Amino acid sequence: MREAYQSKLGGLAGELADMCDIVAQAMRKASDALLGVDLPLAEEVITGDDRIDQLRNQAEEDAFALLALQAPVATDLRVVVSAIHAAGDLERMGDLALHVAKAARRRHPESVLPEEIKPYFAEMGKVAVELAEKAAGIIRDPDVDRARELESDDDAMDDLHRHMFTVMMSPKWTHGVAAAVDVTLLARFYERYGDHAVSVARRMVYVVTGEMPAPTDA
Amino acid sequence: MREAYQSKLGGLAGELADMCDIVAQAMRKASDALLGVDLPLAEEVITGDDRIDQLRNQAEEDAFALLALQAPVATDLRVVVSAIHAAGDLERMGDLALHVAKAARRRHPESVLPEEIKPYFAEMGKVAVELAEKAAGIIRDPDVDRARELESDDDAMDDLHRHMFTVMMSPKWTHGVAAAVDVTLLARFYERYGDHAVSVARRMVYVVTGEMPAPTDA
Repeated sequence: MREAYQSKLGGLAGELADMCDIVAQAMRKASDALLGVDLPLAEEVITGDDRIDQLRNQAEEDAFALLALQAPVATDLRVVVSAIHAAGDLERMGDLALHVAKAARRRHPESVLPEEIKPYFAEMGKVAVELAEKAAGIIRDPDVDRARELESDDDAMDDLHRHMFTVMMSPKWTHGVAAAVDVTLLARFYERYGDHAVSVARRMVYVVTGEMPAPTDA
Repeated sequence: MREAYQSKLGGLAGELADMCDIVAQAMRKASDALLGVDLPLAEEVITGDDRIDQLRNQAEEDAFALLALQAPVATDLRVVVSAIHAAGDLERMGDLALHVAKAARRRHPESVLPEEIKPYFAEMGKVAVELAEKAAGIIRDPDVDRARELESDDDAMDDLHRHMFTVMMSPKWTHGVAAAVDVTLLARFYERYGDHAVSVARRMVYVVTGEMPAPTDA
């Protein structure tokens, strides 16, 4: 019984790690669609979101099955509930990639982003994908130090997010209100994506140590 | 044993309903602080957020205790896991009220919102508080019809959210980029608050019917 339980628990972690890779891919493609004004790529992300929602449902079902297999003791229960939370974070990361792709589609064939803003978003996209890939690695092989590292990696995203406001508020901003509204929302999507990746990593720390790291300001 | 379980389950629902009332209050005060440029009220919301985070932890702890009391069968497990999800949604609603309050504080003694935009935000604030209060009622007395009603109530919020973009994109918008950035983010905070209230209600439908209503587009 215990062995079957451990094996199913490993399976659930594997599902979450795969889901994490998929939402990393979704954000990579969404960013490429945004920067390259690439409609087919945006459509690919938009169509692909259903699959991410299904994976979340599957993970949640498997978590229930796992708990039903064995009356859960405190720690096992916490591990599985952490997995359920992580699945929710990952689904939301998929939604945020979807929002980026939809913004790219909405303005096509125009670019959503003014040319000189693109490098910032290229960087935010890169950081976002790295955070998700790192989180996938941590799910596969929980490592408290690497999980904590992810929190400081996310500071780079927060800095980029804040910097976008400086850029838009500057008298040199010549792109008007409509572009500022798009940039504000897009920067927020990337920043939230990073927050959810951090949240996934923090849950893995909790699974390993039994203690939740002090919350970062949401 | 079963009786103790049912009584604790009722207690958990009560905690969530109280938490829902508290995040409704937080959003009411945050909106008043925003519209009335009221710094002490903004500070009150900001200070009060810790309490909401504690309540979420308490609800999660109580959910665990409840599961430990009795080897959960499928339905009981789903009910408790739904409660854990709902606690997460409610904490996030508190965070969003906090974001509104912080925006009010950041621009004080200036108003964040141009005068003619205030009526829209007064309306968004009203809808937000009503959604949360309705969700509290549904937690206390789960009613599938009222929970579904909440989804259509949230359409009013989505309409207001969309309308803000029309207002900002209009050539009549004379408040510049900085105000547009603030309005964009604030409208997003209210819209997300409404989404989470809907999510809480949907989970209560699930608890009652055993079926999750078809997801709304996030």
